[in-house]
Amino acid sequence: MKAIDLTDEERIDWLRLIRSDNIGPRTFKSLLRNFGNARAALDALPMLARRGGATRPIRVWPRADAEREIETARQLGAKFIGSAEAAYPHRLAAIDDAPPLIVARGDLAALSRPMIAIVGSRNASAAGLKFAERLARQLGEAGFMIASGLARGIDAAAHRASLGTGSIAVLAGGHDRIYPEYHADLLDALLADGAAISEMPFGWEPRAQDFPRRNRLISGLSLGVVIVEAAKRSGSLITARFALEQGREVFAVPGSPIDPRAEGANGLLKQGATLVTEAADVISVLEPILGQHEPMSTREPDNEEPTFAGEPDTDVRARIVALLGPAPVGLDDLVRLSNSTPAMVRIVLLELELAGRVERHAGGLFALA
Amino acid sequence: MKAIDLTDEERIDWLRLIRSDNIGPRTFKSLLRNFGNARAALDALPMLARRGGATRPIRVWPRADAEREIETARQLGAKFIGSAEAAYPHRLAAIDDAPPLIVARGDLAALSRPMIAIVGSRNASAAGLKFAERLARQLGEAGFMIASGLARGIDAAAHRASLGTGSIAVLAGGHDRIYPEYHADLLDALLADGAAISEMPFGWEPRAQDFPRRNRLISGLSLGVVIVEAAKRSGSLITARFALEQGREVFAVPGSPIDPRAEGANGLLKQGATLVTEAADVISVLEPILGQHEPMSTREPDNEEPTFAGEPDTDVRARIVALLGPAPVGLDDLVRLSNSTPAMVRIVLLELELAGRVERHAGGLFALA
Repeated sequence: MKAIDLTDEERIDWLRLIRSDNIGPRTFKSLLRNFGNARAALDALPMLARRGGATRPIRVWPRADAEREIETARQLGAKFIGSAEAAYPHRLAAIDDAPPLIVARGDLAALSRPMIAIVGSRNASAAGLKFAERLARQLGEAGFMIASGLARGIDAAAHRASLGTGSIAVLAGGHDRIYPEYHADLLDALLADGAAISEMPFGWEPRAQDFPRRNRLISGLSLGVVIVEAAKRSGSLITARFALEQGREVFAVPGSPIDPRAEGANGLLKQGATLVTEAADVISVLEPILGQHEPMSTREPDNEEPTFAGEPDTDVRARIVALLGPAPVGLDDLVRLSNSTPAMVRIVLLELELAGRVERHAGGLFALA
Repeated sequence: MKAIDLTDEERIDWLRLIRSDNIGPRTFKSLLRNFGNARAALDALPMLARRGGATRPIRVWPRADAEREIETARQLGAKFIGSAEAAYPHRLAAIDDAPPLIVARGDLAALSRPMIAIVGSRNASAAGLKFAERLARQLGEAGFMIASGLARGIDAAAHRASLGTGSIAVLAGGHDRIYPEYHADLLDALLADGAAISEMPFGWEPRAQDFPRRNRLISGLSLGVVIVEAAKRSGSLITARFALEQGREVFAVPGSPIDPRAEGANGLLKQGATLVTEAADVISVLEPILGQHEPMSTREPDNEEPTFAGEPDTDVRARIVALLGPAPVGLDDLVRLSNSTPAMVRIVLLELELAGRVERHAGGLFALA
């Protein structure tokens, strides 16, 4: 994927498109592919949703709101960066559901440097905190940016220890809604040599479901993820799962089986995560892949026809709807079973998504919503 | 190897032979192979040592001393068991340097049941001790005997937790020289449903070098060895190394990288030991190999000619001596390079060993002493 620069107008269009109803990162990508640019997609949204069977008009994000958000960002010293732009972290750009736009504050050059995530328990032990600090410091000194989630416990320890070398905070809410609030100072401190990013709008208070969603960005930014202390069913394990799905390295720090805080990390080790007791354990795995190009590619190739396939006839749409159910199925199967063309099936799926009737899953799969 | 029963006379001969100068388990085996039985080997010792260039007469263990030792054992309720006998632990019998005789006390049937070693630091943490107890109890309940070294710390915790199900203490000194002394009560307690074994003579005070030597028996008895807490360069790591050499499973319990007591176990995990946080982790690995016959075989097959090769001429002996140096070399190489027969080379090596000029190493290798 070659980097392009968005014009101010395009940036507004991109922001309006991703903030509109029923549009996630994957749908955004599909719309761009089908309509060539965000403006054309925006124009088509009402018609597509209507044809998909929307019961009420789709809410297209107002231009004024987008302009206001970009102005708010400017005042806060933050920037919107599109996934097609050179300043966008290139590993993050490669994940299936990369946010089309991120808002970034701080030293934006830090986002282009090799990154390692360190995440773990909020209720960490003294040993866990001490180790997270030591590891973050050593990896920082070795030239890696440290990414984490600004939570208390392991996250904060990792950020603090990498303030001087470069620390990246990935937020679950808007840049003006720091969580937890008492880490606002820590966030300010890390902006000098690091950065903070968010995909959420200004003013967005992070809800419970925003944290797992945010975790895919922590792993997506990074060459690998180090889990320092993690209980069973913790957010850190979600980050580890994302890392695996995204083809990132997973590292875990061992702990006593007597300590419940070590259960998650020990479990990852049993599943084959690399055991870490010192920075060298991480570096020796990551160094060989540092020079490599991002191994993951977006699942749908760039060289498909970008042109709008025209309106599908009612017959085709009905056949595709009939084929869909609660279990996710792939585009290829839908093409084959509906006896239609890929372009036609994609448009029907877009219509249904925008109408809120279909959900797009990882791996190019679709299911009824 | 078919089990035979030693007669009282044979037992005395075996004991005299293994207690004589310059004779370790491997030399014992070679002597038995070359001379057919221990009595013939005993008779040949002075001549062999002389021919090997001994500067003073070899000390052959007096018959009276052997009889006295067997009587002492009887009084203590202990028994000498030969490696050829059915009561000898069959996995131990398969290791390269199995003691020709062990002295065993307690419930000797326990020695024939599947065994797992649990070993670790003397200065164990509370978490380490608690985990060792839990693991020993659970593995005991699952039907495994627990072998360990009677040391304070992890060893003692493992023994205590398996008193009711069967605990095996492997001693570094004689049965009447329990170390540490304050574990004499623990030893007595475990004899009811378990056993204690030693390869050392009665009255033998364990010296520093006897503990690593003893450790090969702990691993040799067992299907696998679990290392609970072990610092770098600790005795537990020696046991783990023996386990690997003997083809036993190596298990290690993770711990915080901040804790020096976890360094050894974490290091083993990095090298591929199986991570253990619960008994099931051990059982799932060992269950499939439980029914199997001992996979290791003595390195030198039983079906070689057992007959004495006659006296080598001085020429052959000189050639073989010239070929030996401080770096261990194999029998095959010596045969080839000396342009002699295997039987002849073996006899020359035996002579040199008994004269104290050659040392036999693991894997059938020989070097100048």
